[in-house]
Amino acid sequence: MPALDDDGRIVTESTVICEYLEDAHPTQVKLRPEDPFDVAQMRIWTKWVDEYFCWCVSTIGWARHVSKMVEHLDDAAFDEMVAKIPVPEQQVKWRRAREGFPQDMLDEEMRKIGVSVRQLEDHLADNEWLAGGVYSLADICNFSIANGMQHGFPEFVSEEDTPHLMRWMAQINERPAIKRIFEEVPREF
Amino acid sequence: MPALDDDGRIVTESTVICEYLEDAHPTQVKLRPEDPFDVAQMRIWTKWVDEYFCWCVSTIGWARHVSKMVEHLDDAAFDEMVAKIPVPEQQVKWRRAREGFPQDMLDEEMRKIGVSVRQLEDHLADNEWLAGGVYSLADICNFSIANGMQHGFPEFVSEEDTPHLMRWMAQINERPAIKRIFEEVPREF
Repeated sequence: MPALDDDGRIVTESTVICEYLEDAHPTQVKLRPEDPFDVAQMRIWTKWVDEYFCWCVSTIGWARHVSKMVEHLDDAAFDEMVAKIPVPEQQVKWRRAREGFPQDMLDEEMRKIGVSVRQLEDHLADNEWLAGGVYSLADICNFSIANGMQHGFPEFVSEEDTPHLMRWMAQINERPAIKRIFEEVPREF
Repeated sequence: MPALDDDGRIVTESTVICEYLEDAHPTQVKLRPEDPFDVAQMRIWTKWVDEYFCWCVSTIGWARHVSKMVEHLDDAAFDEMVAKIPVPEQQVKWRRAREGFPQDMLDEEMRKIGVSVRQLEDHLADNEWLAGGVYSLADICNFSIANGMQHGFPEFVSEEDTPHLMRWMAQINERPAIKRIFEEVPREF
């Protein structure tokens, strides 16, 4: 789980951390829109990432990538590793990564990815940004899941099928702060 | 889904609505703590309700109560009703309410209820309120799920096993605003 250590004060959960940074360390760059109604729309989008969008993409990522991280282990070493994980739900996820996720679960997650992409595309067709007409945490949190989906999920995301989502991702990738993190932080895959 | 119509501005999602009310219509009664760190802890608790606590309690509620709402329908009438539900996940839930939830799912949800109750009890053993030492949205959102669990889930919640959770529920039930809603709003069950 992501955690922020702010001089000894520990804050967990990505979206909570994002709002905390704005509350505790405000700068000239605003991460939330001004109007309370727009802030609410922003929160609906960040909540949607946490409760829906990130999970379907994550499960497919586990099935495709995490499975490769444990295939070299023998059964005893794998069981020993899983036994150290304190959260039962995570133990189940590691076991599925090794043994294979049920096909009906993968199919359902792919359906949800299709729904998610359509939701973003439809909104971005009429709006430059997700909430309040400005770049906000709604964009940042959704971008962290959506960026690069044209490579991993070309059946859902492409210039032909989702031109507005592609335009929005390109806009964000042009921002100096985003360029900097991709230059400085090594990619996982 | 809960929705607030604020003079034509529609805000959805209970926890987003709660923060919106504080942002758009502040009063002398504060729903959030003052300090940004405490606000973050409050958000972790409201997020936990939305992502964990409410779901396990809800599924058992569906299995116990919603099942009774559809047992009088014949198959054709039930199928017609389900076909009108736009969200596939909700269709699955209604079908399970009629046909019975898988036992392993019910067992897992009961396990999560046990984890949830223990988390609240442990925190409330050392804290009067959930976040920042004040009554806040963290308490309000958790109370809406926890209140009355000593009746529906006596194996988890009781004066003997969870005295601090019982004390916290009693404190909230004594508040004038809570008394008023329970006097004015009819109970569903």
